[in-house]
Amino acid sequence: MRVEQTRYTERFGSVRINEVQKVLELDSGGDNDLSATERIAVVKLNEEMLRDYERKTLIVIPTKDEKLKLLEGVISGVPHDSVILVMSNSEQKKVDRFRMESDTLEQYCHFTRRKAYIIHQKDPELARALAEAGYKDILGEDGLIKNGKAEGMIASIFIAGMMNHKYIGFIDADNYFPGSVWEYCKCYAAGFAMARSSYAMVRILWRYKPKISEGMYFRKWGRVSEITNRCMNSLLSSRSGFETEIIKTSNAGEHAMSLKLAELLCYASRFAVEPQELISIFESFGGVLPMACKSAAKAGVELFQIETRNPHLHEEKGEEHLKDMLLPGLGTIYHSSLCEDVTKAKIIDELLQYNAIEPDEKPPLPQLCQPPKSINKKKFKAIMEERMGLYSTLEEH
Amino acid sequence: MRVEQTRYTERFGSVRINEVQKVLELDSGGDNDLSATERIAVVKLNEEMLRDYERKTLIVIPTKDEKLKLLEGVISGVPHDSVILVMSNSEQKKVDRFRMESDTLEQYCHFTRRKAYIIHQKDPELARALAEAGYKDILGEDGLIKNGKAEGMIASIFIAGMMNHKYIGFIDADNYFPGSVWEYCKCYAAGFAMARSSYAMVRILWRYKPKISEGMYFRKWGRVSEITNRCMNSLLSSRSGFETEIIKTSNAGEHAMSLKLAELLCYASRFAVEPQELISIFESFGGVLPMACKSAAKAGVELFQIETRNPHLHEEKGEEHLKDMLLPGLGTIYHSSLCEDVTKAKIIDELLQYNAIEPDEKPPLPQLCQPPKSINKKKFKAIMEERMGLYSTLEEH
Repeated sequence: MRVEQTRYTERFGSVRINEVQKVLELDSGGDNDLSATERIAVVKLNEEMLRDYERKTLIVIPTKDEKLKLLEGVISGVPHDSVILVMSNSEQKKVDRFRMESDTLEQYCHFTRRKAYIIHQKDPELARALAEAGYKDILGEDGLIKNGKAEGMIASIFIAGMMNHKYIGFIDADNYFPGSVWEYCKCYAAGFAMARSSYAMVRILWRYKPKISEGMYFRKWGRVSEITNRCMNSLLSSRSGFETEIIKTSNAGEHAMSLKLAELLCYASRFAVEPQELISIFESFGGVLPMACKSAAKAGVELFQIETRNPHLHEEKGEEHLKDMLLPGLGTIYHSSLCEDVTKAKIIDELLQYNAIEPDEKPPLPQLCQPPKSINKKKFKAIMEERMGLYSTLEEH
Repeated sequence: MRVEQTRYTERFGSVRINEVQKVLELDSGGDNDLSATERIAVVKLNEEMLRDYERKTLIVIPTKDEKLKLLEGVISGVPHDSVILVMSNSEQKKVDRFRMESDTLEQYCHFTRRKAYIIHQKDPELARALAEAGYKDILGEDGLIKNGKAEGMIASIFIAGMMNHKYIGFIDADNYFPGSVWEYCKCYAAGFAMARSSYAMVRILWRYKPKISEGMYFRKWGRVSEITNRCMNSLLSSRSGFETEIIKTSNAGEHAMSLKLAELLCYASRFAVEPQELISIFESFGGVLPMACKSAAKAGVELFQIETRNPHLHEEKGEEHLKDMLLPGLGTIYHSSLCEDVTKAKIIDELLQYNAIEPDEKPPLPQLCQPPKSINKKKFKAIMEERMGLYSTLEEH
């Protein structure tokens, strides 16, 4: 894989925000001879090196009643060397869709000898492990993990930690193109390979959206991303005193982190989860508020934004209203202690323009979950470790 | 890459037609430990081995006034180790689109150090080289190569031969997904790696077409493919006496061949070119007519049909009528000397049903081009070899 060199990096306290880097070539061949002049503009990432990062990465696929063909396609795109965790919140009662997912995966993994796990988000043992380890932020009144992609993601971070993965990457299950999934995973590995700090995050920017699929959902996401990025950049600009447009991936569903970083962040729910990760990084390591972790502050937190070659084509689920998609993300920015009056006013303006709030109304306060590092890892492991065999698709149940 | 084992092979004279094999996994990881039991069902193709075939393959991208973004995307999906030849028949007068293509490619290849050539189909020197070498079948009255994708493909076979490539693969320029292009190239390499004969062809079957893009064009191609496959299988069935449905890729635009095979085949124009390749193989090596080449007949001709993981999403060009797409392909089958009365009647039935012919009318006789092996290679090389530098995107012009 060939990727553009990081041409420009903005610094915000200990955070290094790299400008968007484009993927130039999906497959850069077997030879390894990048000349010195070439290295000025291009990074060539050796495949063996990428594989090395893939082996250390748990790829998490959150899913909920997704078409089985799509889910299987997504799995087939993940490089073999990464372990897969399907975090499913699918129907189990009327139709046991979870059973169908498990069967599909098992059959697929049987033929490809692929290491993969599938856990239901409402698994009582997983919830019990979290409760006993002292992490109840994502548990509901019934004692089980709440609904929501974000809740599943957080639970996955604990599992990745228990399994000693160094990195965790998220891939949505509704992707039509296994080849895109493959590229996302390669981009994750590429970002971690380029990182100089072990506290790193890679966020994916889609190259473009094919005209043929310009449904309502696409246009809405495009609009939501644009506005969220604008407000996020406004927050950075007013803190630094320099106008910036560096953030282009506020809503990147496809993203990956080093576990060390993942365990330090606060998380929000639903459409707020991705922007909140950035807010949490800026709050914890931006230097305005006290540093959240000394060693991370010293090593620096590195943010990569990588633009894929493949366009993104996913399952159309057009029922969300623009305001419902916009509000949570802007809420995380608005209520951040970094957010000053200029950005607050800008957010209110945007929300009023889209009739997302009434005049004099404020965006809702995001419900935040504490950083995963607070957990008692031993207790979590004591319950979960021996159960992993049950969730595995390769072993016989 | 992991691919299904060839579970079933039909023989037609010296031709071995392998049943469709599915790609199971795009990226099968670094380790190389396929157990004996696993090998029963699955072929794991080592990446280094695939690269070896990629290095020997010229990837030809025929294009005509295609969007530059799509063309660049397609190029970016071709594995680095394959040399690329863009055979362009784009506008040069009103707007010099060919110049724009050359510039785009040059810029891209400059950054990625990618070896690629771009030639205009109407290049007078290319036409002169063909004329002097004694191959005038694709030349028009003006002495230049005629319009048509097939004509460009045939010219590319000569160039591949001159450049000593062992394999040639074709990729359409209108593909939205670089990741699909990457997979096609890997499938070509996989097919050649699995082949036991040096006379081999790989034809791509698309997994499925995403619902979102089910435009007229897609549905028409699906219908055209279905009918053409049915008639092609009828021809095989009535010759062998056993009903078969083995051919699923009569119209596969994405296909690759060993040069040794490519040089032995007769080619037709436009929508007839892909089915005609099969007809030519069946006529030349099916054992019904005299064998066209002793060494090929002895080694056998091998046909692979590989079903990709990625769906196919290409630029919508809806203006073709179904009958215009159907007629040429069925014409090649109808007029084959292998075609007996049952299949002829079937073809007439199908064409009448779609109002593609009048009652008592026959499908048109395909215009066939003689096999490229007949050329005087030395004369072709004498003119073209030194010109290749001019077509290259890496050297300075």
